[in-house]
Amino acid sequence: MDKLFRKTVERHALFPRGARVLVGLSGGADSVALLTLLHGCRHALGVDVGAAHLDHGMRAESAGDAAFVSRFCASLGVPLWSGFENVPVRAKKAGGGLEEAARLARREFLEKVASENGFSHIALGHHRDDQAETFLHRLLRGAGASGLAAMAMRRGAYVRPLLHFSRRQILAYLAEEDLAYVEDASNDSLEFTRNRIRHQVLPLLHTFNPQIEEHLGRLCGRLAVEEDYWDAVVAQERERLAHRFEGGLWLDRGECLKLHPALRRSLIRGVLEELRGDLRGISSSHLESVDSLL
Amino acid sequence: MDKLFRKTVERHALFPRGARVLVGLSGGADSVALLTLLHGCRHALGVDVGAAHLDHGMRAESAGDAAFVSRFCASLGVPLWSGFENVPVRAKKAGGGLEEAARLARREFLEKVASENGFSHIALGHHRDDQAETFLHRLLRGAGASGLAAMAMRRGAYVRPLLHFSRRQILAYLAEEDLAYVEDASNDSLEFTRNRIRHQVLPLLHTFNPQIEEHLGRLCGRLAVEEDYWDAVVAQERERLAHRFEGGLWLDRGECLKLHPALRRSLIRGVLEELRGDLRGISSSHLESVDSLL
Repeated sequence: MDKLFRKTVERHALFPRGARVLVGLSGGADSVALLTLLHGCRHALGVDVGAAHLDHGMRAESAGDAAFVSRFCASLGVPLWSGFENVPVRAKKAGGGLEEAARLARREFLEKVASENGFSHIALGHHRDDQAETFLHRLLRGAGASGLAAMAMRRGAYVRPLLHFSRRQILAYLAEEDLAYVEDASNDSLEFTRNRIRHQVLPLLHTFNPQIEEHLGRLCGRLAVEEDYWDAVVAQERERLAHRFEGGLWLDRGECLKLHPALRRSLIRGVLEELRGDLRGISSSHLESVDSLL
Repeated sequence: MDKLFRKTVERHALFPRGARVLVGLSGGADSVALLTLLHGCRHALGVDVGAAHLDHGMRAESAGDAAFVSRFCASLGVPLWSGFENVPVRAKKAGGGLEEAARLARREFLEKVASENGFSHIALGHHRDDQAETFLHRLLRGAGASGLAAMAMRRGAYVRPLLHFSRRQILAYLAEEDLAYVEDASNDSLEFTRNRIRHQVLPLLHTFNPQIEEHLGRLCGRLAVEEDYWDAVVAQERERLAHRFEGGLWLDRGECLKLHPALRRSLIRGVLEELRGDLRGISSSHLESVDSLL
């Protein structure tokens, strides 16, 4: 697995030489494997490795997890930044789900540690089975092609070097190397929907196709490449057809109508995102309404 | 439903005035609704309507279905072309599944009747729930984005005017109009996989999202629009970068490498299809191999 891991990192050019990589370390199987593998080839890759652990304050065992993570990093000689946040309180304040609050808390913590300590990259332990779950989760919520691309191997400062590896491969590697890990706290906090996808939907789909996670992972990869293409073309067309004027954004209607419907749709999406800052609450039927207004 | 149907046909410009439309009529709910609706607005649309029924020789009742269809067409005053094929024998010869053999037999029969009798279009009764099943079927087989676009509302001579309507809407319309129909023979011939998608997968997905068929239908529509875009761009790039020479097809490697990976991939796919006539047996890993060869 060491070799395959290093090859994957190199083939996808995940880190330039001299990169400083902060690993998000829950202490669970995935992140323990990720840190071990990355630490193992840090010289070959020419990167510096650190770790960050956030205690979510969500379970009685979470203090034990923090202690495990601390011993584990000490044994590797990897610097560790630890933090604490009461996620249930945060979720209550935000009025949202636990999983979403935990995700945001982790993200904030990791980005803060990274920026305060000069890390150029943040590495996360998501693997192919996570990717398949994310895809199905979004499919069930009615996402379009861009949402279905799910998680990217690289997006901004975030990298996911294990995205093409299966949970089974990771567990086998840990067993082979006789590495300990804790039951991932994030598994307990899995929201109801995600849990059902893991324990009901995926097992059923497996009876149709035992390679379903692999297929979905590849599909996500291809959708991400297409998404990247749309981003590039839309940026080009936005430059050509949209102009800021009196605080608004103006589109040349005649030129827009000459575009292929797929391109026009992506352009409208891009312009809405630019105007609002994000696309929350914008569904595909909104996009279709704007399109038919044109 | 009459009005909504006519609006859908007009909005998607499914038939030009003067079109001659042959309806594939199994006698089941979907095709009975389709023929009735199309017959009802034939004057408004300015189209001629006929029907074709193929007896698949697959069930004891199939002769009864043929008789039902014949009476039904007589009651509407719609000309009917009937045919017979022993589908189980055909499937045995081809060494494939019953459903695939039935599909091919129907397609051949419809195209023969259409071409011999001057029909410009062939209309099929597929609806949104069929579309959702097709999408999931292909997703489970590991299809890429283009395969996931599933069935098109219009492709070549084929049109599917009911593709945005649900099975429930169709059954409600039939009940309201007090129209009789037979249990669709094609439901019996549903292959095992498709049956399980209908009776196990979709009901489970429904517990996550009661609008799942609608979502999947819209997703297919959007993927089809993107697919159409890729077809157009690939045709352009093929013209620019590929040349026939000594029986082969030559791609300009340097120029190909300058293309965005998504576009290069689509181009390779298009060129392979042109060389081989179809893409049977070509998987996405084949495409990736060709791409890395470049």
